[in-house]
Amino acid sequence: MAVSPFDSAIYRDLFHDAEVGKLFTDTAEVRAMLLVEGALAKAQGALGLIPEVSARAIHRASLELQVDPGGLARETGQSAVPVPSLVKAFRTAMQAPEHSQYAHFGATSQDIMETAQVLRLRQVLAICEERLTTLIKALGTLAEAHADLPMAGRTYGQVASPVSFGQMVASWGQPLLRHRDRMRELRERVLCVSLSGAAGTLSAMGDKGPEVRAQLAEALGLADPGASWHSERDRVAELSSLATMITGSLGKMGEDLTLLVQSGFNEVRLAQGGGSSTMPQKSNPVLPSILVALARHVAGLNGVIQGATVHRQQRDGAAWFAEWLALPQICMGLARALSAANELAPGIAPQPDRMAAAIDDGTGLIYAEALSFALARRMPRPEAQAAVKALCQEVQKTGTPLADLAARDWPDADFGALFTPAAQLGTAPAEARAFAQAAMAL
Amino acid sequence: MAVSPFDSAIYRDLFHDAEVGKLFTDTAEVRAMLLVEGALAKAQGALGLIPEVSARAIHRASLELQVDPGGLARETGQSAVPVPSLVKAFRTAMQAPEHSQYAHFGATSQDIMETAQVLRLRQVLAICEERLTTLIKALGTLAEAHADLPMAGRTYGQVASPVSFGQMVASWGQPLLRHRDRMRELRERVLCVSLSGAAGTLSAMGDKGPEVRAQLAEALGLADPGASWHSERDRVAELSSLATMITGSLGKMGEDLTLLVQSGFNEVRLAQGGGSSTMPQKSNPVLPSILVALARHVAGLNGVIQGATVHRQQRDGAAWFAEWLALPQICMGLARALSAANELAPGIAPQPDRMAAAIDDGTGLIYAEALSFALARRMPRPEAQAAVKALCQEVQKTGTPLADLAARDWPDADFGALFTPAAQLGTAPAEARAFAQAAMAL
Amino acid sequence: MAVSPFDSAIYRDLFHDAEVGKLFTDTAEVRAMLLVEGALAKAQGALGLIPEVSARAIHRASLELQVDPGGLARETGQSAVPVPSLVKAFRTAMQAPEHSQYAHFGATSQDIMETAQVLRLRQVLAICEERLTTLIKALGTLAEAHADLPMAGRTYGQVASPVSFGQMVASWGQPLLRHRDRMRELRERVLCVSLSGAAGTLSAMGDKGPEVRAQLAEALGLADPGASWHSERDRVAELSSLATMITGSLGKMGEDLTLLVQSGFNEVRLAQGGGSSTMPQKSNPVLPSILVALARHVAGLNGVIQGATVHRQQRDGAAWFAEWLALPQICMGLARALSAANELAPGIAPQPDRMAAAIDDGTGLIYAEALSFALARRMPRPEAQAAVKALCQEVQKTGTPLADLAARDWPDADFGALFTPAAQLGTAPAEARAFAQAAMAL
Amino acid sequence: MAVSPFDSAIYRDLFHDAEVGKLFTDTAEVRAMLLVEGALAKAQGALGLIPEVSARAIHRASLELQVDPGGLARETGQSAVPVPSLVKAFRTAMQAPEHSQYAHFGATSQDIMETAQVLRLRQVLAICEERLTTLIKALGTLAEAHADLPMAGRTYGQVASPVSFGQMVASWGQPLLRHRDRMRELRERVLCVSLSGAAGTLSAMGDKGPEVRAQLAEALGLADPGASWHSERDRVAELSSLATMITGSLGKMGEDLTLLVQSGFNEVRLAQGGGSSTMPQKSNPVLPSILVALARHVAGLNGVIQGATVHRQQRDGAAWFAEWLALPQICMGLARALSAANELAPGIAPQPDRMAAAIDDGTGLIYAEALSFALARRMPRPEAQAAVKALCQEVQKTGTPLADLAARDWPDADFGALFTPAAQLGTAPAEARAFAQAAMAL
Repeated sequence: MAVSPFDSAIYRDLFHDAEVGKLFTDTAEVRAMLLVEGALAKAQGALGLIPEVSARAIHRASLELQVDPGGLARETGQSAVPVPSLVKAFRTAMQAPEHSQYAHFGATSQDIMETAQVLRLRQVLAICEERLTTLIKALGTLAEAHADLPMAGRTYGQVASPVSFGQMVASWGQPLLRHRDRMRELRERVLCVSLSGAAGTLSAMGDKGPEVRAQLAEALGLADPGASWHSERDRVAELSSLATMITGSLGKMGEDLTLLVQSGFNEVRLAQGGGSSTMPQKSNPVLPSILVALARHVAGLNGVIQGATVHRQQRDGAAWFAEWLALPQICMGLARALSAANELAPGIAPQPDRMAAAIDDGTGLIYAEALSFALARRMPRPEAQAAVKALCQEVQKTGTPLADLAARDWPDADFGALFTPAAQLGTAPAEARAFAQAAMAL
Repeated sequence: MAVSPFDSAIYRDLFHDAEVGKLFTDTAEVRAMLLVEGALAKAQGALGLIPEVSARAIHRASLELQVDPGGLARETGQSAVPVPSLVKAFRTAMQAPEHSQYAHFGATSQDIMETAQVLRLRQVLAICEERLTTLIKALGTLAEAHADLPMAGRTYGQVASPVSFGQMVASWGQPLLRHRDRMRELRERVLCVSLSGAAGTLSAMGDKGPEVRAQLAEALGLADPGASWHSERDRVAELSSLATMITGSLGKMGEDLTLLVQSGFNEVRLAQGGGSSTMPQKSNPVLPSILVALARHVAGLNGVIQGATVHRQQRDGAAWFAEWLALPQICMGLARALSAANELAPGIAPQPDRMAAAIDDGTGLIYAEALSFALARRMPRPEAQAAVKALCQEVQKTGTPLADLAARDWPDADFGALFTPAAQLGTAPAEARAFAQAAMAL
Repeated sequence: MAVSPFDSAIYRDLFHDAEVGKLFTDTAEVRAMLLVEGALAKAQGALGLIPEVSARAIHRASLELQVDPGGLARETGQSAVPVPSLVKAFRTAMQAPEHSQYAHFGATSQDIMETAQVLRLRQVLAICEERLTTLIKALGTLAEAHADLPMAGRTYGQVASPVSFGQMVASWGQPLLRHRDRMRELRERVLCVSLSGAAGTLSAMGDKGPEVRAQLAEALGLADPGASWHSERDRVAELSSLATMITGSLGKMGEDLTLLVQSGFNEVRLAQGGGSSTMPQKSNPVLPSILVALARHVAGLNGVIQGATVHRQQRDGAAWFAEWLALPQICMGLARALSAANELAPGIAPQPDRMAAAIDDGTGLIYAEALSFALARRMPRPEAQAAVKALCQEVQKTGTPLADLAARDWPDADFGALFTPAAQLGTAPAEARAFAQAAMAL
Repeated sequence: MAVSPFDSAIYRDLFHDAEVGKLFTDTAEVRAMLLVEGALAKAQGALGLIPEVSARAIHRASLELQVDPGGLARETGQSAVPVPSLVKAFRTAMQAPEHSQYAHFGATSQDIMETAQVLRLRQVLAICEERLTTLIKALGTLAEAHADLPMAGRTYGQVASPVSFGQMVASWGQPLLRHRDRMRELRERVLCVSLSGAAGTLSAMGDKGPEVRAQLAEALGLADPGASWHSERDRVAELSSLATMITGSLGKMGEDLTLLVQSGFNEVRLAQGGGSSTMPQKSNPVLPSILVALARHVAGLNGVIQGATVHRQQRDGAAWFAEWLALPQICMGLARALSAANELAPGIAPQPDRMAAAIDDGTGLIYAEALSFALARRMPRPEAQAAVKALCQEVQKTGTPLADLAARDWPDADFGALFTPAAQLGTAPAEARAFAQAAMAL
C-alpha cells in the first residue's frame, strides 16, 4: 500500500529514505515495543516488583520472539492502541503463563508506544545529525573554493550588487550550524523514557515507580525525565519545530539552486538532472525541487503536531492520534531532505563565465550603488544618489554603459576598479571563509 | 513500509480504508496510467495521428500487460516522474516496436499522471458521496427518533438552555447536506481530462490536439476542459478544500460525541468502545477521536495543497511534488472519516435519563433565561434580567432551586410548565424533523 | 495601534484596502450590530412579539444613535462578546426605557455579531466579485493582444517548448473564471441571517422564531437559512476556502511575473516598481511580491478557520474567537490581492525581443521535442528520441545550433519552419483567444 | 482601523496586550528605526567612515526628531519598505543637509527594519520571560497547595485512575520550565544586530563593515552575529516556533480548565467568568477559551513564518512581507496568552467535593486497575484482569459498586484502603511538590 509516496515502491528512490525508513516499518515498531517491554520487566525484576525469574524470561523472550504486525490489526482497530493485542500475542508466544503474566506490569499503552518511539527518534537524530555535519562540511568546502568568485546578488529577483558564490553557499550553511546546536540542545529534552502508568501516577508499581523509570532509562540508554510527561507534548513539538526549520533552510538552498540553474541563467550546473518523457533536451533540477517540496510538506505537518500540544487531560486520543499521522512523515521528510542535499552538494558546479555575464549585462547597473558612494565624496550624498538615479534611467533608455556615462559627466574623476566585481565583494570572501572554517572545525 | 499509518498493517483497521486504499496502491497507479496511455493511443489512432493498427495494439496491451511498479523506482528516482520508465517498460513488454513506438505520442508525463489521478479521484468522489448520503440518512433517522428528546444545550461547556438531541444530530447533518451540494458542484470542475503536451500547447499533435483531448475525455468518461490546465491548480485545491470542510464537520460530530460520552455525563452510549492495556473498566470513544484526528490531519495537509496553487510557470516541480505527498492522504482521510462516522452513527444511543439529569441538576439554572422572559411580562425586561441574575446567585450560594425562589418572590405568578424542558425546546423538534425529511428525500 | 500591517498607517498603501478596510473598523462593527438589532426589533414588532411602538423606536434609534466602540472594551474584556455592553449602552442612549427594554429580545450575542458580520461579508463579496470581473477582463484584453506572441514555456525553470504569452495570461485567468462561479455558488450558502437564540431553539420567541428569522432576513436582504446554524461553521469555512484559492491563484500570477521580470530575463516590464534605500538602479516587483505574500498569509489563516469547524456543542468560545482573529484578515487579504492584481494587470508589458531571445539562445534546444517528432516520421520514435537526445548533448558541448546539426545529419530532410517559434505554438493562440472571449462575455 | 482584533478598541481588554502592544505601534516602529539610524551613524563616525560631527548631529536628531508615520505611507506603498521615505523625512527634519547626507550610510532598508525589530523583540522576550516566570511560580504555589488533592484522571474523557490536582497543575507547569530554558537558548541566537548592506557584503563601508556592525551591536546592547544574516530566516523561525509551543502549552491549560469547569463537573471554580447577553445564569470560562483560541491562531501564523524560511536569493520580497504580516501577531498572541494565564492562575479554585464525586460516582470503577493488581497477587494477572473486566461489566449493568462485588467474590481478601483515592495517588503528590520546588527556585 502506498497512500504516502514515502511508502511507495515507485517513489522509493525519490522520497523514501532507506535508513530512516526502516525505523518506521511495522516490524520496527513491534520490535521497539517488545524491547521496551523486555527492559521494563528486567527493571521490575531487579527491584523486586515482579519475580526475577519471570523478568528474565520476559526479557529474553522480548529479544527472541517475533510478533506478526498484521495479527495486531483487528484489535488495534478497536482499541486504537496496538499494545493490548501485542501483549496478548507476546504472552501467547512465550508459552509460559507463569512468567508472561508479569509482562507489561503496571504500564499503559502510551508508556510502551512512546518509549519505543523515542528509541527510534534517537536513531533518527543520530542519522540526521551525521548528515547535517556531512552537509555542512560539503558546503564548507564549496564556500572555501569559491569564496572570491563574484556573482550577482539578487533581491526581489533583481540584480542588486555583487556578492560571491562562496558567501551564498555560506548563507545556506550558517543556519545549519545553528540547527546543529539546536539539535544538541533538544536531544536532552527529547530523548527520555516515558513511564506514567494508567493516568500518570505509576500507582500500580507501589512506591517503586520512580526507580523503575530510572532503571528503564538506564537500560535503554535514555534520560530519566524524573516525572510523567504523557500529556506534555512540548518534547514532540520541539522535535517537529526543528525538523521544520531544517527542511525550511534546505528548501532555501533548493530554491536558490532552482533559480541559479534556470535556462538563461545557468550560473550553476548540477551533477544530476531529471529527464522528460517527451523533451529530449531537458535536465530538470529534481533534487532542488524535492528540497522545496519536503520543506512545504513538513511545514504543513508541523501545524498538526503543534496543534496537538493542546492535549486534553491525562490523555487525549484525538491529539495523540494526530501525532501518529504526522510525526513519522516529518522524520522521513527531514531525513530525505538531508540526504537529497548531500547528494546535491558535491555536484554543485558554479559557472564563472555565466556568473560574470549576469553581474554585468553590459549596462553596469549593478555598480550604481558603488558609484553613488564614490560620487558622495565630491557632492552631498542625496545629490549623488539623485545623479546616479538619473544616469540609471539614461542607461535603461539608451543602453550606454553606466561607466561611460559616469566618465562623460565626471571626466576628471578616477573611478579606478569601481566597475569591476572584485572591487565590490566587501565582506563576502571573508564570510565564506569564516563559514568554511567553522564547518571544518566540526 | 509504513511511514504513514494509512499504509501500515498494524493500523489497517484503524486508519486505513480498504476501498479507497486500493486506489492509492502502486499497482493501481500503474494501471491507471496505462489505461490513460491506451485511451490516448486509441483516440490518436481514430484521428489518424498514429497508425490505427498501432493504436489498437497499444490499447489492447495497455489493458493486458503488467508493469512492475518496483521496476520503475530507479529511473523515477532520477526523473521524479515515473512515466519515462513506465513507457519504456511498456514498450519493451509489448514486444512490437513498430507499434509501441506510438505509445505516449505527444503527451508529457503530467498528462498521464494527472489524468490517471483524476480517474481515481472519480472513484474516490463516488465512494465518498455514497458514504455521505448513507451518513446523512443515518443521522436523519436518529434526528427523527429523538426530535423531542430534551438535552442540555451547552455553550462554552456551560449549560445554556434546553435543546433536543434530535436538533443536535441535525446540526451534524445539515452541513453534510451542503457538502453534498458542494461535491456535486465541484465534480464537474474536477473530473476532467488533463492533456497539455510538453508545455501546454499540444504542439506535437499538430492541429489535432483539441480533438484528441475531446475523444480521450469521452473514452475515459471524464469532462473535456477545453484547454490545458496543468499549471492551474484550483481544481486540486477545491477538492482538498472540500475534503477539509467535510472532515472538519465530522470532527465536530466526533468532538460532541466525545463530550457526551464523558464519564460523569454518559448522555450517549456508543456501540463500540476501545479497551485499555491496563484499565479493565475503560471503553474509550475511539471512533470519535479518529474523526477529530483526521480533521486535524487533513486540515494540515490542506495547507500544503493550497500553498501549491502558487505554481510557477508551465510546470513547477516543487509545487507538484508537494501535491503528491499530500493529496492521497487527504482522500484517504476523507474516506476513512466518512466510514468511521458511518460505523458510529447507527450505534449512537442517547440516554434520556442522563440527559434529563444534566438539564436540571436540581438548581433549575438552565431556566434562567426563560424565567427572565416570563418576568419581563410583569416588569421592564432589564429589571427582570437583573432580578433573575440575583436569583441565580442565590441559587448558587444556597442550592435552593430557581423555581422555589421564583415562587417565593412572585407568589401570584403562574409559571406553568416553564421549569420543564419540554416547554423550552422552541424550534428544536421542528429543526430535527426538517433535517430528517431532507435526509430521507435524498 | 498596528499589530497587523493591515491596520497600520505606515503600510496603508501597501497592504490596506480602503474599501474593505472600512467594513472592518470598530465603528463599522458597532454600526452593523445596531442595524441588526433595529431590524430584529422591527420584525418582532410586526409579529406582535414586542409592542410595535417600541419596535419603531428601537429601529429608529438603531439608525440614529452612536455608540462609542471604546466604551465597550471593559465589559467585552470580561464577557468576550461586545453585545451585552452594546445593548446596555444602546438602551441608555435611547433614553426611553419603556421601549429600549425590548431591544435584543430573545436573541443572543452570536445572532447579532454573526448577522452583522454577514452583512459586511455581503459587501466584501460584492466588492471582490467586481474586482474579479475587472481583473478577468483586463487579463482577457492582455491575452487577446498577445495571443500569438511566442515565449519560452518553462518547466522546473528550464526551457521546455514554446508557448504564447497570451496563453500564459489565460492560465492566470482561467482559474479566476472558475472562482467567479464558486463565488456565486457560495453566496447563497453564506449570505444568510443567523438567528438562534441562547442555544439554538429561539425558545424565547415562543412559536414566532422562524417567522422572525424570515422577516429579519427579508429586511436585511439576506437569505433565511430555515434553521439555526450557529454551531455549523461550514459557511465560514467555505468563504475562507475560496479566499484561499483565489489568493493562491493570484499568487501564481505574482510568482510568474516575478520570474518574468527577473534581471537577465526582462521578458515583461511592469508599470510600477519599488525603489531601494541604497541602490539607485532598482525597480523591484513589489506588487507581484505582495500577491505571493498575501497568498501565503491567507493560506496560513485558512488553517485556523478550517480548524475552527471542529466547533463544540452549541457554542464553542475558543473556536469562535479563533474565527474572529482570522476571518477579517482573510477578507482583507483577498480584497488587497485583487486590488493589487488590478493595479498590475494594465501595466504588464511583454517584451517580444526578450521573449524571442529566451526561446532561442542560439542553441535551438527548445525545438528538440519538435525535431524528435519530425524525425519520427522517418524512423521509429524511440530511435528519433535517442538521436535527438544525442544531438542535444552535442549542442551543449559544442555550442553548435541544433538546426545545423540536424541539417548535417539529415541533409535530405526539409524541416521547414520547424525551428521557428510560430510553428510550435499549437493550441496556445486559440486558448488565449478563447479565454479572452469568455472574459469579454462576462 | 481594526482588521485584527489585536488592534481593535472594542476587543482591547480581550485580546490586546498593552505592554507588548505599544512595541508594535507605527510610532514605535518609526522610533526604533530612527534609533538604529542614530546608532549606526555614531558607530560610523567613531570609525571615521563619516564625519564625526555629522554622526553626532544624526545621532542627536535620531533621538529628538519626530517623523509622522502616516507621512511615510505613500512612498511605502510603492517601495514596500518605509526606510527610503523615512530617511528622506528625517533628513528634511534635520535641516542640516551637510550632516544629514550621512544618515543611512551604506545600509539597506532591511538592516534598519530588522535591527529595529530585534530591539523590540528583545523587549517582547523580556516581558514574556517575566510573565512566564510569574506564571510558573503561581502554578507552583497551586501545585504545592493541592499536591495531595485527589481528582479523577481522565483519558479520552473517560475516568481512568486517580491523580492529584497538584500533579495536573504540575503538568501545565513542567513544559513552561522547559520553555524558559528554550527561551534563554534562543535569546543569544535571535537578539543580534542585522547589518548587511545592499546584498550582504557591506561593500559601501569599505573594509570597516564588520567593525561598524560590532560597534552598532554594542551600542544597541545586541549581539554581533559576525556575518550577514538577512536571507537566513532561522532566527525568526525559531522565535515563532517557541511562541507556538508556549501558546500551545497554555492552550492545554485552557482546555483542561474549560473541561474542569463544565456544568456538571464544576471541579474547578474560576475567579472570572463572562456573562451572556440573554442567559442570566451564565459564567463562561472566557480566559481559558482565549488561551485555546490564541494557541490555534499562533499555530496558523507559525505556518506562514516557517514557510518564509524558503527565502530566495539575497532578499525575497514575498517571503519577507509574509513575515511582516505574521510575526507581530505571533508576539502579541504569545504575550496575551501569558497575561491571560497569569490572570487565571491565582483564581483557580479546585472544588474537593466535586472532585471526590467525580472520582467515585458510586460505582468505584476508577479502582478497577488497582483491583486487578491486588487480585494478581492471588491469581495469574491475565486471569485477574479478565475477572475485573467481568466485574466492571456487572457494575455497569447492575449499578452495584465494584467494592461490593469484589467483597462478594473474594470474601477472604482484605482490600484495605484500595477503594480510596488516597491509596492510589502514586507519584502524583511527589511530582506536584517537585514541580513546586523547581518553580520556587527560579
